Amino acid sequence: MRGLKVVTIGGGSSYTPELVEGLIKRYDTLPVRDLWLVDIPEGEEKLNIVGNLAKRMVAKAGVPIDIHLTLDRREALKDADFVTTQIRVGLLKARAKDEHIPLKYGVIGQETNGPGGLFKGLRTIPVILDIAREMNELCPNAWLINFSNPAGMVTEALLRYGEFDKVIGLCNIPIGMRMRVARMLDVEAHRICIDFAGLNHMVFGLNVYLDGENVTERLLALMVGEKTPGLTAKNIPDIEWEPEFIKALGVLPCPYLKYYFQTDEMLREQQAVVKEQGTRAEVVQKLEEELFELYKNPDLDTKPPQLEKRGGAYYSDAACSLIDSIFNDRRDIQAVNVRNSGAIASIPAESAVEVNCVITRDGPKPIAVGDLPVPVRGLVQQIKSFERVAAEAAVTGDYHTALLAMTINPLVPSDAIAKRMLDEMLEAHQAYLPQFRQSSHSDILD
Amino acid sequence: MRGLKVVTIGGGSSYTPELVEGLIKRYDTLPVRDLWLVDIPEGEEKLNIVGNLAKRMVAKAGVPIDIHLTLDRREALKDADFVTTQIRVGLLKARAKDEHIPLKYGVIGQETNGPGGLFKGLRTIPVILDIAREMNELCPNAWLINFSNPAGMVTEALLRYGEFDKVIGLCNIPIGMRMRVARMLDVEAHRICIDFAGLNHMVFGLNVYLDGENVTERLLALMVGEKTPGLTAKNIPDIEWEPEFIKALGVLPCPYLKYYFQTDEMLREQQAVVKEQGTRAEVVQKLEEELFELYKNPDLDTKPPQLEKRGGAYYSDAACSLIDSIFNDRRDIQAVNVRNSGAIASIPAESAVEVNCVITRDGPKPIAVGDLPVPVRGLVQQIKSFERVAAEAAVTGDYHTALLAMTINPLVPSDAIAKRMLDEMLEAHQAYLPQFRQSSHSDILD
Amino acid sequence: MRGLKVVTIGGGSSYTPELVEGLIKRYDTLPVRDLWLVDIPEGEEKLNIVGNLAKRMVAKAGVPIDIHLTLDRREALKDADFVTTQIRVGLLKARAKDEHIPLKYGVIGQETNGPGGLFKGLRTIPVILDIAREMNELCPNAWLINFSNPAGMVTEALLRYGEFDKVIGLCNIPIGMRMRVARMLDVEAHRICIDFAGLNHMVFGLNVYLDGENVTERLLALMVGEKTPGLTAKNIPDIEWEPEFIKALGVLPCPYLKYYFQTDEMLREQQAVVKEQGTRAEVVQKLEEELFELYKNPDLDTKPPQLEKRGGAYYSDAACSLIDSIFNDRRDIQAVNVRNSGAIASIPAESAVEVNCVITRDGPKPIAVGDLPVPVRGLVQQIKSFERVAAEAAVTGDYHTALLAMTINPLVPSDAIAKRMLDEMLEAHQAYLPQFRQSSHSDILD
Amino acid sequence: MRGLKVVTIGGGSSYTPELVEGLIKRYDTLPVRDLWLVDIPEGEEKLNIVGNLAKRMVAKAGVPIDIHLTLDRREALKDADFVTTQIRVGLLKARAKDEHIPLKYGVIGQETNGPGGLFKGLRTIPVILDIAREMNELCPNAWLINFSNPAGMVTEALLRYGEFDKVIGLCNIPIGMRMRVARMLDVEAHRICIDFAGLNHMVFGLNVYLDGENVTERLLALMVGEKTPGLTAKNIPDIEWEPEFIKALGVLPCPYLKYYFQTDEMLREQQAVVKEQGTRAEVVQKLEEELFELYKNPDLDTKPPQLEKRGGAYYSDAACSLIDSIFNDRRDIQAVNVRNSGAIASIPAESAVEVNCVITRDGPKPIAVGDLPVPVRGLVQQIKSFERVAAEAAVTGDYHTALLAMTINPLVPSDAIAKRMLDEMLEAHQAYLPQFRQSSHSDILD
Repeated sequence: MRGLKVVTIGGGSSYTPELVEGLIKRYDTLPVRDLWLVDIPEGEEKLNIVGNLAKRMVAKAGVPIDIHLTLDRREALKDADFVTTQIRVGLLKARAKDEHIPLKYGVIGQETNGPGGLFKGLRTIPVILDIAREMNELCPNAWLINFSNPAGMVTEALLRYGEFDKVIGLCNIPIGMRMRVARMLDVEAHRICIDFAGLNHMVFGLNVYLDGENVTERLLALMVGEKTPGLTAKNIPDIEWEPEFIKALGVLPCPYLKYYFQTDEMLREQQAVVKEQGTRAEVVQKLEEELFELYKNPDLDTKPPQLEKRGGAYYSDAACSLIDSIFNDRRDIQAVNVRNSGAIASIPAESAVEVNCVITRDGPKPIAVGDLPVPVRGLVQQIKSFERVAAEAAVTGDYHTALLAMTINPLVPSDAIAKRMLDEMLEAHQAYLPQFRQSSHSDILD
Repeated sequence: MRGLKVVTIGGGSSYTPELVEGLIKRYDTLPVRDLWLVDIPEGEEKLNIVGNLAKRMVAKAGVPIDIHLTLDRREALKDADFVTTQIRVGLLKARAKDEHIPLKYGVIGQETNGPGGLFKGLRTIPVILDIAREMNELCPNAWLINFSNPAGMVTEALLRYGEFDKVIGLCNIPIGMRMRVARMLDVEAHRICIDFAGLNHMVFGLNVYLDGENVTERLLALMVGEKTPGLTAKNIPDIEWEPEFIKALGVLPCPYLKYYFQTDEMLREQQAVVKEQGTRAEVVQKLEEELFELYKNPDLDTKPPQLEKRGGAYYSDAACSLIDSIFNDRRDIQAVNVRNSGAIASIPAESAVEVNCVITRDGPKPIAVGDLPVPVRGLVQQIKSFERVAAEAAVTGDYHTALLAMTINPLVPSDAIAKRMLDEMLEAHQAYLPQFRQSSHSDILD
Repeated sequence: MRGLKVVTIGGGSSYTPELVEGLIKRYDTLPVRDLWLVDIPEGEEKLNIVGNLAKRMVAKAGVPIDIHLTLDRREALKDADFVTTQIRVGLLKARAKDEHIPLKYGVIGQETNGPGGLFKGLRTIPVILDIAREMNELCPNAWLINFSNPAGMVTEALLRYGEFDKVIGLCNIPIGMRMRVARMLDVEAHRICIDFAGLNHMVFGLNVYLDGENVTERLLALMVGEKTPGLTAKNIPDIEWEPEFIKALGVLPCPYLKYYFQTDEMLREQQAVVKEQGTRAEVVQKLEEELFELYKNPDLDTKPPQLEKRGGAYYSDAACSLIDSIFNDRRDIQAVNVRNSGAIASIPAESAVEVNCVITRDGPKPIAVGDLPVPVRGLVQQIKSFERVAAEAAVTGDYHTALLAMTINPLVPSDAIAKRMLDEMLEAHQAYLPQFRQSSHSDILD
Repeated sequence: MRGLKVVTIGGGSSYTPELVEGLIKRYDTLPVRDLWLVDIPEGEEKLNIVGNLAKRMVAKAGVPIDIHLTLDRREALKDADFVTTQIRVGLLKARAKDEHIPLKYGVIGQETNGPGGLFKGLRTIPVILDIAREMNELCPNAWLINFSNPAGMVTEALLRYGEFDKVIGLCNIPIGMRMRVARMLDVEAHRICIDFAGLNHMVFGLNVYLDGENVTERLLALMVGEKTPGLTAKNIPDIEWEPEFIKALGVLPCPYLKYYFQTDEMLREQQAVVKEQGTRAEVVQKLEEELFELYKNPDLDTKPPQLEKRGGAYYSDAACSLIDSIFNDRRDIQAVNVRNSGAIASIPAESAVEVNCVITRDGPKPIAVGDLPVPVRGLVQQIKSFERVAAEAAVTGDYHTALLAMTINPLVPSDAIAKRMLDEMLEAHQAYLPQFRQSSHSDILD
């Protein structure tokens, strides 16, 4: 059998060495022959830096993976087996605006399920839908594995508006929660299994098992007094959960839940941090610059440990595990973003959910969980409504639909503030939102 | 056929003259022979004042309705045909606490779907479940028509935990919205028909018809610039909707929606009003005192016009219309709170919803609307989750369940604030929450 | 206001005098100005006979309804208010084949939900979809009221494949069941109300009310010993239900249910009848010839009583009531075929059902019944599957889809017999099935 | 860790050596310390014969499994880890009646989803519910694995009426279909994976994969001309599918589907076979007698090859695999009968389905398949209705409910025949149906 062709769009990302390391480690069972790193002209310099590091890494490891660097996406996609997308339309400068502008209005930006996430989605979805269209033409048997945030909204858009069905949205939160639980219980991670269900960045561990035994209650009790239960992401402030609340909730929350159940505290924390260090985008910007300085070093031929500060822990693991399980038909369980198909009762069957799936060569098959606990069902539905309306706005470029998405976001306190934020953000991101130019509100954009 | 026996629990309420007036007006088709006004010992004085006014009203009108005043609920319920409940456990003093305490934490109290409503529910539900139990024994063929707020939560509790199925929750909001729409379009109200669907105080007019023609879009356009679209309730501040948002929403919102889509503005307005005039409870307290002064006047033998300021406009109309339509099998359409049975797709079939029903002698039959618009589906689900968890807390007296209900309420900004409000309110209302005394958190209550 | 324009496609039908009589009777509240009777060239002679009778009828009645006879459907449809379809593609000759051919294989033909109904659907659906397309262009505000059988399958096809949404399928079975119940209880029909739910010719009376009181049990007891419970249609043999079964069922069955729960007896009865009198199509053919002889009589200026033998009792009533209730926004309850929208839980929301609706100017609004009784849920689902697959076959002309529809029909005993019947019927009806000519199995049709 | 305690109720069955062989083979990973074989007094002789063979088998194999023979079920259940049930209430004599009586009425008996299955269920369900109650008390952490037919109906009864949740229904049909597919494609079975979904004995292979590649279409084409596609069970006559129908169906049918889609042919075949050899029960009776003669041989210390004729191929494999996967938390995929939980859209969430599950230490977790193909959805629903009504009849002993179950069975042609069969079978099985003795129809039973 010939080796695999893997294509990474947004290949100039600072995360790429993680992926390369993962592929090297798994080479024996996942024989990748060609890794194509694709980027846009603006990203060419970074692509070359990262690409050359990748070449040194495979050379050092002695595995016969060919690294290809290109700005020609169609050439790369041709006959691909797996396509991963880790794009950032508008780069970190756009993310900084996603975070800064809402804060001016006393609102958390939140680049996935918040107002910032809305704009990240509006910029990203049309590009990913284009990629899906090209895949349908150039590599119809490949799998599209999307890491680009907001991963839930992007998957929703791909499932509802895409011409290409073999799509999986991937996030490092579930794997991070599992690692964290393992540390809390002081056991190896492979002994832990969690029934994940919900949406991207709004996922719950319905049951936690240690060696197959249900230890959920014990774990929730351990979380009392813990400062950062279930917390994995570098970008989420450390605020203690109210212990009685966690006990009452009865399921393991993902760290992003704090945005909704500790809104005030999170906002104040974020405002304080921004005052001191700038937005997360600006922090990351600096980290990235430092990383690329390191990457340039012609003697560097392994992933530098500094990359771990970047916040994408386990991304590579998540991605390589997924590709490996598909390729080898491993039938193991991973939590990914896929079409619901009834796995979660109160979410529409055709919508995207983040849920435990059996990963087969035929793709992920979601495990039915019945329904989410009553207390969180409403909030989950609200985020799903937000994702659906936002995805529609991204595709149609309709101003009113975008306003609706903004207003119904649970972090946004009023229709008036929604409108003001929306207008300012449409203006600020105008270069990356061509679909809104023909809109009836084009005056807003001029 | 013998005349009807109607029982009003909480008969000493200042609203009672509305009801009496309604029954007098409809006497020809709704021959009530006995109206029993029931109250508790603490309310005896008011009961006598209101009851004597009621007697003078029927005497003046010349209709043979016998008014009975009693503190013996079981005697009253025996063989009743219709039982209405308009109780206020803890009286207006408790309501004042429901409003005051949350405001101390920067949270809107909101006596139906907010933290205040949670406590009103915790106090009210056990009493109404008792009434349902007695009805099952003493008048199993009667209908229970509940006006007591939070009407949605109470109906949910009756449907899930009650032993008595013939229950209908009633609210004046839908009828008020219809009246308001009629005024906006400058037509008589009977020419307007609205497809109502949602939950109590979270209901939407999906379509608005004038003489059967769909005029929704035209109406939403009229709302632009209006200060109080759809506003009926005296207790909700007048804040303008963002016109673009209303257009985007595409359906007629009920006034309570402002609490969720104009949270900040509503809070500020409420804080200002309270500073100036005290809480709504205190305003109402004063109005009530004035009303009872009027009611005492032995020359008064009709409903005094001042009652209309009280905020319960159309309640009598709503109640009498409903009783009349059941009794006469009128098969007209009214929006009431009943078991969903699939009428609204994304709400569980066994939950309570507020939806257009055909009113028959066999009770209300809900009209299927398919589903609510995507943008509001999440918020509606969230209120439904709140109602369900709150109803469970009311029945079980479980502290953690109550904390969950408080925390998931969309007006509550964090788990920590939820806990502090909950603890203070449990303490403040302790006399009316016997079910929480045996709770594992009884220390909180001592 | 100008009078209404009503268009009847298949206007040359022997039923038309029923409709004309109904419109005359209701003229005061339903002011029809123009009645257009449309037919195809083959039907021109009958159209003229019936049309002239219609003209004499309105003249005699002294109402200013203009009767127009035409073969030009587009001219007729232009600006219509209501369009009724009562077409019979292939005429009674085709129906005779629908009945004869299955009997050769020991199978009941059954022109609605049986193998005969499959072929009637394959012939009829493309024509009705054409009419819907033309209405979308020529009279987009009109309502399409379809009487043509199989009414459930046709409504399913219109809802799934049509470009026109204002469609209602109409059947005389529910009104006939109500009349029958009134006779059994010896009361006037208007005092009876039945909660109808199910599919066309597979509808159930979930509850029966007399003056609003639930008398279902009493009625089912009356059916014991009755030879023809719920029986209305002239074309269904009189076989006694097993009394214990009816009691166990607990709901009022429609007469067509006998085809599924008395299959053997119905088949034997039908075989005996056919031997003696020919198929129902042939009986009807003779009746029709006699009727047209009567209609020709220039002295006849009212509906002749002989028409009632024809089997379409109450069709006119059903149709005129429906039109009247829409036009006058009467909000009364009628059982019609519409999109389910959740009214019946176990049928897909987007499928057609026959269910009680409130009839408004905005069309019928289905009343939610929760779910059908468990015992009949499966059979109903099976007929729905048959309708869906058959509708798909009618639209696509796909041989395998047609074979599937035939095989899954509950009256068909095996795949082998299904194939043989299908092939013979495709051949026999080939002139009326143009969509199957390009099929991969076109050899079968040559 | 101590070894496992496995309890087999109905341990005197001729199948037991299969199970013993399976446990011996897997001893290394599935360390069973105690195997308790339980039977009733009437079965004591067989229990001893089989039990002694089992003892010789483990001795020969040299594994330290202790075999315990007992008539005291409670003693056996105490602290069990796994309990399997393979009981036959009324023995093969009762089965013979289940088959003979329907044939007299021209109806296939069918011991699972037919009239025979109804009676097998009525006899078996109360016994299994008793076992579940005892397990709840004596071994609440054990798993109940039921093989007794009708496995779907029994699982439905356990889930709806049982006090014990850890129940799994097991059938050898899915594993048999997989073996058969492997033979048809001439590959090893482990390379084949099938997406199973449906009900017990009404299960479909929605997709068939070879090494992860979807080969469904290719396989269905292979079935053309095959005499026994998907056929595994010895007891189902070999009749060819109509090739066009299989192609149209598009999914792999289980052999039992022939009863519904080849009803006539199956009936004739069965009648012919019975004439020649007696019913399957009688054939099996003879086989069993021969087997027990063999088992008595004190020199026999392995499973005799003759057992394979008995028809339970793969049962041992299925059972041991399931126990092994639970014990070792293997997370592999097996098709078993469990609570649906949304895995199959058109079946109620709380009903039993047969569907692919991931087998974990925490039990089977069903994989969501969305929905079954439209063409079979109705038939599946009908069997589910049959199972539900039959389970209710088994628990309540209500005559009318039993009549309903019999009449709605798709193999039963009419209500009259249903009643006659029911009455004769109630009489014939009266000794094993104590719950029907107090029924209002007790006259029938005297």
